[in-house]
Amino acid sequence: MKNLPATAVIREVGLRDGLQSIATILPTARKCEWVSRAYAAGQREIEVGSFVPPKLLPQLADTAEVLAYAQTLPGLVASVLVPNLKGAERALDANADLMLLPLSASHAHSLANLRKTPDEVVDEMRRIRAARDASGKKTLIEGGVGTAFGCALQGEVKHSEVLRLMQALLDAGADRVSLADTVGYADPRSVSDLFEQALRIAGGAFCCGHFHDTRGLALANVYAALQLGVTRFDASLAGIGGCPHAPGASGNAATEDLAFMLEASGVRTGMDLPLLLDLRQQLVHWLDGEPTHGTLWRAGLPKTFHSQP
Amino acid sequence: MKNLPATAVIREVGLRDGLQSIATILPTARKCEWVSRAYAAGQREIEVGSFVPPKLLPQLADTAEVLAYAQTLPGLVASVLVPNLKGAERALDANADLMLLPLSASHAHSLANLRKTPDEVVDEMRRIRAARDASGKKTLIEGGVGTAFGCALQGEVKHSEVLRLMQALLDAGADRVSLADTVGYADPRSVSDLFEQALRIAGGAFCCGHFHDTRGLALANVYAALQLGVTRFDASLAGIGGCPHAPGASGNAATEDLAFMLEASGVRTGMDLPLLLDLRQQLVHWLDGEPTHGTLWRAGLPKTFHSQP
Repeated sequence: MKNLPATAVIREVGLRDGLQSIATILPTARKCEWVSRAYAAGQREIEVGSFVPPKLLPQLADTAEVLAYAQTLPGLVASVLVPNLKGAERALDANADLMLLPLSASHAHSLANLRKTPDEVVDEMRRIRAARDASGKKTLIEGGVGTAFGCALQGEVKHSEVLRLMQALLDAGADRVSLADTVGYADPRSVSDLFEQALRIAGGAFCCGHFHDTRGLALANVYAALQLGVTRFDASLAGIGGCPHAPGASGNAATEDLAFMLEASGVRTGMDLPLLLDLRQQLVHWLDGEPTHGTLWRAGLPKTFHSQP
Repeated sequence: MKNLPATAVIREVGLRDGLQSIATILPTARKCEWVSRAYAAGQREIEVGSFVPPKLLPQLADTAEVLAYAQTLPGLVASVLVPNLKGAERALDANADLMLLPLSASHAHSLANLRKTPDEVVDEMRRIRAARDASGKKTLIEGGVGTAFGCALQGEVKHSEVLRLMQALLDAGADRVSLADTVGYADPRSVSDLFEQALRIAGGAFCCGHFHDTRGLALANVYAALQLGVTRFDASLAGIGGCPHAPGASGNAATEDLAFMLEASGVRTGMDLPLLLDLRQQLVHWLDGEPTHGTLWRAGLPKTFHSQP
């Protein structure tokens, strides 16, 4: 067996990737309670929302307020998604710790979702980097290459194209890059293949794997990436998020299941599983009637499990 | 990345491990239809039931009839579980291709479930081997070490004890041995650790990994074992089975999700995924109201997926 990393970070994206796919609008106070309790459970990286026009995503209209609250918690890395320069300017104004610009490696998906080609998104990265540098702010910029394993519209997305676009984002000024299996097309072997090449190209600038559990393979895919030394993974509590192309389908990897897999495998996350499961129960109550996922919550932690903070 | 095996076998255990935990009694004709359609979908190893007293498990009272039907299908390896010598004599009379004697490495679980210590089960293996040899039948004998990663009653089960009992089963005459995470306590690292040692001890006689998805890690655990060269895994269609210690919890790894993971990773299973998903839908209909699991069925196969028989 290869050695696994000693530690890994789970970045909570439920407040963004999760809530944006759910009709229920979670009130700001509850989002802040979520952030606060996730922090109490040991989470130190949270994507709190998205600076998109509120009419497009009313669920995330209060991103600035949630971000402001998150910034009161010492040591918490609060990030936001930004679809373009305009969003990035809001993130800079708000002193976000990190902003993530998504790029879809599938041309069809990119045009349908962002109304830009992938290379036009690279141009936007260049403008965002210039704006950050001009602002003097410390906000980090992450370029996230999505539909990295294929796309429900276009079908196949070539690894070479994914890697070309990842390199282009770095060349355009991204501080970090990450890869996302937006629609749950990845499998452990393809993760090993693509992530190994991505790490070779980006080295320490390669920061995160983002896996949807649409077809049940999210945790196996994480494990494949973990074996290569990847130490940051996106996940959403209760696996909320879904897939616009498959009604009722699972969303992101469930934070609680992922934290369990990592901790049980001896990879320290700093997270308190019982607190996280309590918070999950609260969230499911708040989202009453919305589809939620994950497996650990039903059976609870094994008798032999001891968190090692 | 380590090379994965070129092929792997999924042994369907839903008709035994799945149905025994479910109140609904599936009529014999439907069980035979299940076997027939699984065979048509490419499955070549099926555990059809268990030779236990019908009053203990009325769901499996027709095991002999289902076995007789399975034996009409060319090339199908039809196996049964046998709890003791008496069950083994029935399996020999019926010319089963394989009989599996379960042993629980947890002493507490063994006493509660089988009313025998693990070492008394080893003695039973010795008697079963003698009976097989005396009968002149070709029925293979598998010794399955369960609760190999811990137990809800006893808590920890030491790897050294699991391996000692596995060796004892081989010494007592088992043709093959396998390991089972009966209650979903395993994680990928512990699977790597234990299975690596088991393979070193048993070599080619180590035949199968059996993982329950009680805490969401079944497929990641399979992937960890696959990387060591293990090429046979138990699974149950729609993940039926549950866990007696956690009401509502998931059962075995879902056959259809596992087949998808293997095929998508380039590990050939000989299975036809669309046929398997059709059969899953039929089974869920037959078991109307019973808990079923698995993830792939909601979203369906990726646009880019092509089975390669």
